[in-house]
Amino acid sequence: MTEAQQHAVPEQDLEALLNDWSSKDVEQRAEIFRGLDRATAEDLFLKVHGHDQADLYCLLPVGDRKAWVRLLPPDDAADMIQELAEEERPYALNLLDGPTRMEVQGLMAYKEDVAGGLMNSRFARLRPDMTVDEALRYLREQTRAQVETIYYAYVLDRGQKLLGAVSLRELFSAPGYRKVSEIMASGDDVAFVRESQDQEEVTRIFANREHRALPVLDENGCMKGIITIDDIVHVVNEEATEDIQKMGGMEALDEPYFKISMFNMIKKRAGWLLALFIGEMFTATAMGFYEDEIAKAVVLALFVPLIISSGGNSGSQATTLVIRAMALGEVRLRDWWRVLGRELVAGLSLGVILGVVGVVRIMLWPARSTLYGPHYPLIAAAVGGSLVGIVLWGTIIGSTLPLLLRRLGFDPAAASAPFVATLVDVTGLVIYFTVASVILHGTLL
Amino acid sequence: MTEAQQHAVPEQDLEALLNDWSSKDVEQRAEIFRGLDRATAEDLFLKVHGHDQADLYCLLPVGDRKAWVRLLPPDDAADMIQELAEEERPYALNLLDGPTRMEVQGLMAYKEDVAGGLMNSRFARLRPDMTVDEALRYLREQTRAQVETIYYAYVLDRGQKLLGAVSLRELFSAPGYRKVSEIMASGDDVAFVRESQDQEEVTRIFANREHRALPVLDENGCMKGIITIDDIVHVVNEEATEDIQKMGGMEALDEPYFKISMFNMIKKRAGWLLALFIGEMFTATAMGFYEDEIAKAVVLALFVPLIISSGGNSGSQATTLVIRAMALGEVRLRDWWRVLGRELVAGLSLGVILGVVGVVRIMLWPARSTLYGPHYPLIAAAVGGSLVGIVLWGTIIGSTLPLLLRRLGFDPAAASAPFVATLVDVTGLVIYFTVASVILHGTLL
Repeated sequence: MTEAQQHAVPEQDLEALLNDWSSKDVEQRAEIFRGLDRATAEDLFLKVHGHDQADLYCLLPVGDRKAWVRLLPPDDAADMIQELAEEERPYALNLLDGPTRMEVQGLMAYKEDVAGGLMNSRFARLRPDMTVDEALRYLREQTRAQVETIYYAYVLDRGQKLLGAVSLRELFSAPGYRKVSEIMASGDDVAFVRESQDQEEVTRIFANREHRALPVLDENGCMKGIITIDDIVHVVNEEATEDIQKMGGMEALDEPYFKISMFNMIKKRAGWLLALFIGEMFTATAMGFYEDEIAKAVVLALFVPLIISSGGNSGSQATTLVIRAMALGEVRLRDWWRVLGRELVAGLSLGVILGVVGVVRIMLWPARSTLYGPHYPLIAAAVGGSLVGIVLWGTIIGSTLPLLLRRLGFDPAAASAPFVATLVDVTGLVIYFTVASVILHGTLL
Repeated sequence: MTEAQQHAVPEQDLEALLNDWSSKDVEQRAEIFRGLDRATAEDLFLKVHGHDQADLYCLLPVGDRKAWVRLLPPDDAADMIQELAEEERPYALNLLDGPTRMEVQGLMAYKEDVAGGLMNSRFARLRPDMTVDEALRYLREQTRAQVETIYYAYVLDRGQKLLGAVSLRELFSAPGYRKVSEIMASGDDVAFVRESQDQEEVTRIFANREHRALPVLDENGCMKGIITIDDIVHVVNEEATEDIQKMGGMEALDEPYFKISMFNMIKKRAGWLLALFIGEMFTATAMGFYEDEIAKAVVLALFVPLIISSGGNSGSQATTLVIRAMALGEVRLRDWWRVLGRELVAGLSLGVILGVVGVVRIMLWPARSTLYGPHYPLIAAAVGGSLVGIVLWGTIIGSTLPLLLRRLGFDPAAASAPFVATLVDVTGLVIYFTVASVILHGTLL
C-alpha cells in the first residue's frame, strides 16, 4: 500500500475493526463488511492482509470485483490472487488492466517466501545524469503514481542495471545543480538482496541493520523491485509464528487460530502427535526389558515419570535456545562445537542441581522407609545419579539436534520440545535402569 | 539512526561484520573493533544495537568517549546508556551537551518496554498556518538536523498539542499555496499511541496496519515523540524471542546466546527446571498411591511414560497455539469459551486417534501374551480409554492455562510446554490408574 492511501476514513472505527478482524469468523466478517459504507469498506479491504483480502474479494458481487481488484498495487494484488482458490485465479487476473496483469503475473512467478515474492515492482527510478532539481521534480510527479515509496530512489542504466541509490532526504540536502550520480551511494555502499534470497535471510538483514528499503536484484544486477521495511514486520511475525508452532510439536498452521478449519487444525496436529506417540511406544518396549527389575523393586517405577520428564525439560530448554539463536543468526552451523561446549557445562550444572534436590527429597521424606523400603539411601543414590546423567543427556540432545537437522537440510525448528522429550524418554529409561541396576545390585535387585 | 548516516563506508565489509557480530564473543569483538579504521568503527558503532553499543563504548579510551557518544541520536543514546552498568551511567550522561542530556534523561525516565521507551523525541514539526511551500522549505532545512525522519511531519499548536499529521509525499503532491492545515489528516484520521502503551501493543498496531510512523502522545494530547517502523522490527523479534524462551520452559535470557555469561544462563534455566522438578515430584507421590496396583500388575507400569507423554504433547500443542494467537491479538480473554469449544473437539478427536492406535498396537503386538499376560485385551482397553481421557485433558489444560494466566495478570507465555506437561503428568497418572482399576477390577487387580 502506498502512503497516499493513508488517512482516508475515520481512523478510529477502522482501527477498532482492524484490531478485531483476525478474531472474527467468516460469517461475522461477511456481515460487518456488507454493512460498511463504500469508502470504509475499501479502506478495510486495502489494509487487511492477503488471505483476508481474498476472503473479502469472494464476498463481492461478481460485477463489482473489477473495480476493487484495481485498487490494489501489484504486489498486494499478487498476494491476494495467490490466496484465492486455484480455479478463481485466472478470472481475477483478467480483471486487471494489461500492464498491471503482466506485473502481477511476474510477481506471482516467485515463490512466496523469497525476496522476489515480497517485493513491489513499482519503485522510483532516476537516471544518473539528472540534476538534483530534476530528480526532485520527477519524484514529485511520482507522488500520484503507485510507486511503493518516493523516499528511496534507485539510479538505473538503460539496461535496468542498478548504478546507485539515493534517499529523498539526501536529494533534499544536496545543491540543486549537482548530478544525481555525484551524490548517490554506489558500488559497495549500496546494500541489496537477490530475488531468490530466502525471506528469513531478508528479514535478518533488515533486523540487524537500519535499512528502511532494499533493492532486489536478479543475477545480472538488474533491479526487479523494492522491499520496504513495512513489508518486513509482517514477515518477521509470520516466521516467528511458524517456528513457535513447530517448536510446540506440530505443523505450522499457516492460518490464524480462529480461521483454520477444524479438520485442517486436527490434521496439522495429529501428524506430529502420532509420530511422537509411535516414538514414545519404545518406552513401553524399554520398560518391558526391565519388567523383572520393576517386579522386584516396584519403588523404581515410582520415579520413572520424574526422571524422564527432567530429561525432557532440560532438552526443551536447550533446543528452544538453539533454535531461536539460529533463527536470529546468532548461532551458525560452524558454531557446533562452541554450542556443545556451553551446553556440556550447563547440562552438567543443571543435572547436579536437580540430582542434589532429588537426593535430599528422598532422604528427608517423612515416610521414606515405608514408601521406599529400608534401602532408601541406595534408591536416593540411583535417582540422583540418573538425574545428573539424564539432564546432561537431554541438554546435549536438545542443543545438537537443531544443528543436526539444519546440517541435513531440514528445518531446525522441527526439533520441538516434545520431539526432544520423546528421544530423551527412551534413552533416559535405559540410563535410569542401568544406573539403578549397578547401585542396587545385591540389595534390591 | 537517521537516514543521512547511511552509506558512509564500504557496505560489504561492514555488512559481513554486522552479520557475524552477534555470534562473536567479547574478546573477538574487542580485537576486531580496535583493528578498524575510524570511519568504519564509527559506522559499526552506529549500526549495532544498544547492548552492543554499550560494550563498544566500554572499549573506548576514556578521553575518546565524548566524541563517540555525541554521534548518537537521543533515543539511541538513551538505549545505550541504559545498557551500561548503573555506576557508569552518570559519566556517560555528562559527556552529552546540555540540551541533548535533557532529552536523553527524559527518554530514560520511560520504562524500556513502553511506547515512550521506543520513541525518538526529535521529529519534524510544522505549524498549521504554514503553506505547503513553506513546509517543504522548512523540511528541507531539517535534513541535516537529527530528526528521525522528514518523511512524516506533525502539526502542533503552541501548547505542543497534536493537530494533525502529513507525509512528505502528501505535501509533494499538494499545490504550494495551500495551507498545511488544509491538507493534513486530523482528528480521528490520525492514528497515535500513548507514551505509556506497552510495546507489544505498539508492535501489533504496526503489524496489523500499514503505518510507517506513529506519533506518541501524553495524556493531554501533547506530542512527545515519534516511533518509526524500523524501530519495530527489532522489538518484534525481541518479543518473539522472549515468548519462545518462556515457552521452552525457562526465563527469557534477554541477551544473545553466546553473549550471556554461563552463570546467568544457568540461573535463568535452573529456576524453572527446579520448579518443574518439584512439581513433577508429585508424580512419585501419585505413583506411590498405586504401588499395590503396580505390584499386582507390573504391566501397568510399562505404559506410564507413553500415556503421560501423550498428555504432555497434546498439551504442548494447545498451549503453543493459544499463546501465539494471544500474542498476535487473534485470541483475547473474552474468546475463552470459543477456544474451549474448539479445543474440546480437537482434543477428543486427537485422543480417539491415539487411543485407537494404542489399542491396535497392543492387540497386534506379536509377543502380546508373554509381555502383557493373558488379559492383554483388557490392558489394551485400559490404555486406549486412558489415552482418550488424557489427550483431551492435556488439550484443555494447555489451551486454558494461558488464558487463565493472562486473567490473573501473568504472562501467558509462562504456560510453557514443560509446565503444561508437568500439570498433565500428575493428573494423567490419576486418570490412567483410575481407568485401569475400573477395567481390570476382578481380573488383574
